Amino acid sequence: MFHGLSAFPLTPLREGTFDEHSFINLLRPVVDAGVDSLGILGSTGSYAYLTVEERGRIARCAVAHADDIPVIVSIGALRLDDIRSLADDAQSAGVSGVLLAPVSYQRLTEDEVFNLYETVTRQLSVPLCIYDNPATTGFSFSDELLFAAAALPNIGSIKLGRVPEDLSQVRARLPDTVTLGIAGDWRAASALQAGFDVWYSVVGGLFPQTALAIARSKESAQSERLEPLWALFRHYGSLRVVAAAAEMLGKVETPALPFPLQAIHGEPREALAAIIADLALA
Amino acid sequence: MFHGLSAFPLTPLREGTFDEHSFINLLRPVVDAGVDSLGILGSTGSYAYLTVEERGRIARCAVAHADDIPVIVSIGALRLDDIRSLADDAQSAGVSGVLLAPVSYQRLTEDEVFNLYETVTRQLSVPLCIYDNPATTGFSFSDELLFAAAALPNIGSIKLGRVPEDLSQVRARLPDTVTLGIAGDWRAASALQAGFDVWYSVVGGLFPQTALAIARSKESAQSERLEPLWALFRHYGSLRVVAAAAEMLGKVETPALPFPLQAIHGEPREALAAIIADLALA
Repeated sequence: MFHGLSAFPLTPLREGTFDEHSFINLLRPVVDAGVDSLGILGSTGSYAYLTVEERGRIARCAVAHADDIPVIVSIGALRLDDIRSLADDAQSAGVSGVLLAPVSYQRLTEDEVFNLYETVTRQLSVPLCIYDNPATTGFSFSDELLFAAAALPNIGSIKLGRVPEDLSQVRARLPDTVTLGIAGDWRAASALQAGFDVWYSVVGGLFPQTALAIARSKESAQSERLEPLWALFRHYGSLRVVAAAAEMLGKVETPALPFPLQAIHGEPREALAAIIADLALA
Repeated sequence: MFHGLSAFPLTPLREGTFDEHSFINLLRPVVDAGVDSLGILGSTGSYAYLTVEERGRIARCAVAHADDIPVIVSIGALRLDDIRSLADDAQSAGVSGVLLAPVSYQRLTEDEVFNLYETVTRQLSVPLCIYDNPATTGFSFSDELLFAAAALPNIGSIKLGRVPEDLSQVRARLPDTVTLGIAGDWRAASALQAGFDVWYSVVGGLFPQTALAIARSKESAQSERLEPLWALFRHYGSLRVVAAAAEMLGKVETPALPFPLQAIHGEPREALAAIIADLALA
């Protein structure tokens, strides 16, 4: 399951609460396109802003509309009891895997992060993807911690926002059963070329055909034509950009993001509209 | 209320849930010492790890045991509806002020942070202290944003983790009704000397007499004798250090912090025990 293209759709809101109708409409073309997995309630799916109850409901909804495509759900939270409830709910919903970033308020230490993964993986019946996301967690995995955590039971993949300088050396220290995935859509083609197994993709959650063309061909040219979009992703954060795209295309209500987060507006939103038209993304 | 020494006690846990008995025992000496305000459920009070319901209960408990000392409660959360509920609960509990940091998962923009404070302050009947805490929020206020936010209605104070180079210039651009407070205990004496109005103090929540000696005298020497403690605060985070001190002194259960956070242990904990004895803090 942790290979190829994993598409991370938005979790759209309507007046601040889960908009199931729009969510199902977002899932349909992604499922029909035949992505390799669905990444539900990732950072792009605003998991951190939703309650345990909402997240259970959204996981069940995703599994019900995923046909045979494996569903991966984030179980990240600050409290261990919330993480446990989220893992239980996700597994009861029938997900195929879970994703966990070391969400923090107080920045965590290496020991604390290892203890977290050790405790959480012990109760899992599905594989877990370790998510190294310093931009949202304030915590960066060292290579040593990554190797130690990857050796825990039930680890299936690692989601990295960088391509290690010596990928073969990193690979040699990971269990054979643990795949390597890339986050940051603008890095995907080069990471897949370098030997990454999976692309955890934001654009794939809204424009799955475009993402599949990159994931299947691994051609730089396929990615380079999207550079105007990647520039917006890097500058404003991919979430604010895909939310604006989904709003403009009428696929979700406006505003779709949890306050105080805002989809891009004004000049960059106009630039995005031109990019979507130029690249025939929609 | 936003002046002098504001003492921030721990919110101790027992088996992962609020330990009311230990909390009241922590409050008593702080109240008896005559601090100028109590900062309940600050970062040191683990607010981010507790539910809205738990936080309402803790606010009520603090007000009930604060005698005539003003209580300030943090209302920080990722979701606006949670912030609103927390503000309502705190005000119903009878707090004198609230504290709000721009808690984030996706790092917020300046516009988003301003909109957040504008929206929240509109519903308040007590003054709010703006908390600039880049280490936990990943967001740093620019001076311009600080001035704009400070001019909103119901702003009573700003809690900064730094001493601006030109304090008089900063002061000149703040409303007269907004006080300036310092966070980071090792900076307190020099900040108070430089003209800060209030010290938002971690050490004051456990060793109020020690903190009061610094706050009342503003003498560098009073602070410098605590340098071994400040060094631990800077290295491990003050929360992990005061939690270890409270655990060692038998004032709270072990572990008192929410998993995966850990009080310091091993060598630094032994060093802390020696510091507490040497400085006669307990």
